[in-house]
Amino acid sequence: MKNYFSSDFKLGVLGGGQLGRMLLAETQKFDIYTLILGDNHQAPCAQICNEFHQGDLFDFDTVYNFGKKVDVLTIEIENVNIDALDKLEAEGITIYPKPSNLRVIQNKAHQKSFYKEHQIPTADFTHFAFLEELKHSYESNIIEFPFVWKAAQFGYDGMGVKVVRTYDDLQSLPEGECIAEKLVPFKNELAVIVARNSDGDIKTYPVVEMEFHPEANQVEYVLCPARIEESVAKKAQEIALKIAKTLDFVGLLAVEMFQTENDEILINEVAPRTHNSGHYSIEASYTNQFEQHLRSILNLPLGNTASKVAGIMVNLVGEEGYTGNVVYQNMNQILKIDGVTPHIYGKKTTKPFRKMGHVTIVHQEIEKAREIAQLVKETIRVISK
Amino acid sequence: MKNYFSSDFKLGVLGGGQLGRMLLAETQKFDIYTLILGDNHQAPCAQICNEFHQGDLFDFDTVYNFGKKVDVLTIEIENVNIDALDKLEAEGITIYPKPSNLRVIQNKAHQKSFYKEHQIPTADFTHFAFLEELKHSYESNIIEFPFVWKAAQFGYDGMGVKVVRTYDDLQSLPEGECIAEKLVPFKNELAVIVARNSDGDIKTYPVVEMEFHPEANQVEYVLCPARIEESVAKKAQEIALKIAKTLDFVGLLAVEMFQTENDEILINEVAPRTHNSGHYSIEASYTNQFEQHLRSILNLPLGNTASKVAGIMVNLVGEEGYTGNVVYQNMNQILKIDGVTPHIYGKKTTKPFRKMGHVTIVHQEIEKAREIAQLVKETIRVISK
Repeated sequence: MKNYFSSDFKLGVLGGGQLGRMLLAETQKFDIYTLILGDNHQAPCAQICNEFHQGDLFDFDTVYNFGKKVDVLTIEIENVNIDALDKLEAEGITIYPKPSNLRVIQNKAHQKSFYKEHQIPTADFTHFAFLEELKHSYESNIIEFPFVWKAAQFGYDGMGVKVVRTYDDLQSLPEGECIAEKLVPFKNELAVIVARNSDGDIKTYPVVEMEFHPEANQVEYVLCPARIEESVAKKAQEIALKIAKTLDFVGLLAVEMFQTENDEILINEVAPRTHNSGHYSIEASYTNQFEQHLRSILNLPLGNTASKVAGIMVNLVGEEGYTGNVVYQNMNQILKIDGVTPHIYGKKTTKPFRKMGHVTIVHQEIEKAREIAQLVKETIRVISK
Repeated sequence: MKNYFSSDFKLGVLGGGQLGRMLLAETQKFDIYTLILGDNHQAPCAQICNEFHQGDLFDFDTVYNFGKKVDVLTIEIENVNIDALDKLEAEGITIYPKPSNLRVIQNKAHQKSFYKEHQIPTADFTHFAFLEELKHSYESNIIEFPFVWKAAQFGYDGMGVKVVRTYDDLQSLPEGECIAEKLVPFKNELAVIVARNSDGDIKTYPVVEMEFHPEANQVEYVLCPARIEESVAKKAQEIALKIAKTLDFVGLLAVEMFQTENDEILINEVAPRTHNSGHYSIEASYTNQFEQHLRSILNLPLGNTASKVAGIMVNLVGEEGYTGNVVYQNMNQILKIDGVTPHIYGKKTTKPFRKMGHVTIVHQEIEKAREIAQLVKETIRVISK
């Protein structure tokens, strides 16, 4: 294995957002020289990496030219120009996750087809190249309400997903390639992060449980460990491992799942990177997901994925009705509570539902942590001046 | 209390070394804009702070002009121009630790006199303005071998401290103001970190135990918790609290102590800042010492100082016989061990005994952590290419 520490090695990261920002804390710990390509100079990573390059992540030349500067290239967001990555890979740049994996994952129709092809359980779906085809299917009684519409590409944080229950819902959908997925009643939304290096070493983090905000379709609480039966947790981890191995994946893969009423596990979607559902790991795990991402893409031994204590993450999102320079109201109140750690992402302006940071709550007991998390959620407000 | 998060507030730090580097991970987490004054552009902090200013920490104008740019000024090293700090404080800049505290602490003779004056237990000592006075005292049989010579000013990491056992030892001492301290046999070297904010909220971390390298006089292992009786730990924490309160100290105060053969606690010295003996806290504590330093100097509520797990720190120091571009040999071996986290400080060149980084080992059981720490120590080598 290569000795990356304090060498002339250069790591490139596509994307300059909060995931990149938290990764930088780990590249600093390991003294890895890091270049970031982000879309603007106000990006959360801009001021604290070794080199910040500003450019469009969808532009072939921008991504290609950036990739030529580095030894290993990774991503913090999967919506990037994959053609440029293919060319870089062909020219010998090490890229993890692999461009071929990104192609499968970036398009939700391809992702769902991959699950079907490999007998990985997921809700039934139909693929439409255009919205008109979906409407036609409805009018021909091929699909019926309710169903879940998902944009095939570029969905993020609940954008690009909608439960369609009425004709009005159907009429309000945006144009473009999409899928219609069977709406499956479920007890829990779960997630498992898998880490795998190029030697094939593979580990899963514990199963986490996600509680969603009813309107914004954003995660409100992530609980680790999930309050589920051991047999269900084991099944969830096994399916996550199967996906990573089937993809021959290298890096971190976050697998989002539904636990159905009869304890089946259905894959919702995967993200080929560090993930919101793993932020709790900074405070709670022996090896946090950002360090683990570095270990996996650099083919270092993987770290211990177990937890020291129970952890819960609360997303800090912009409150409705506030747009402008951000203020974190009552921050001092939550800092008074033991085991509470805020992470602010460095975005200067807030808007409704924008992810501005998160707060981690750790405690020996998950039930106690959940109580504190509720208190934190009810206390802190992300508003504008 | 002021809302520091995502405001236009600017924090200044005097010193650009590894303590500043680890502090930056916390200013990033809290989104605090941070300016660093360091002595060279290769300093560990240089590339990853918001603004790096290069200059001499002992130069009045340099420190003064830097201080005028910030709202709150702190230090990561106590050897700075205090006259400039006095002027800045008089002009309304908030400075923690306070310049008056730094004056007492920076000079070991003043520090020892402070303990005597306030009935804080410490080894007996004599103060000499010049080395010649010390030699004269010896020749006049006022002091006798063995004793501990300490330079009054600018000692660091065991430099400026020497056990004088022979006439040759005496002759080899450097010139300058110094103290001669009674050599007290001790069972353990202990340390307690105290955090105090300007509201007067005060907390201590658990007592840690230090094992020193027999020759280099540098800490080899720091163990938390110390393997001592509860009554001794309580006494050590009470003395540390007394020092911080007597100084009306604001910030982090690291108190180094001896546990004598008959379980007395004697103060060795204090450092008015984050400290090597607190590095374990990044992985082991609910609130690490760097976050706690920010909380204390910004008058935020102090965090929980308890540990999630036992922690041991191993310093990574340059091996004898190697000077030049650093290589961390067998890093991959230690990464294979559960609960092992390296922190590399970003110094490009090594020399014998130079502090290049540290490794933290955490485990539920301190004895098991100690075994792993030994293995880490025996495996990793800090050498040059």
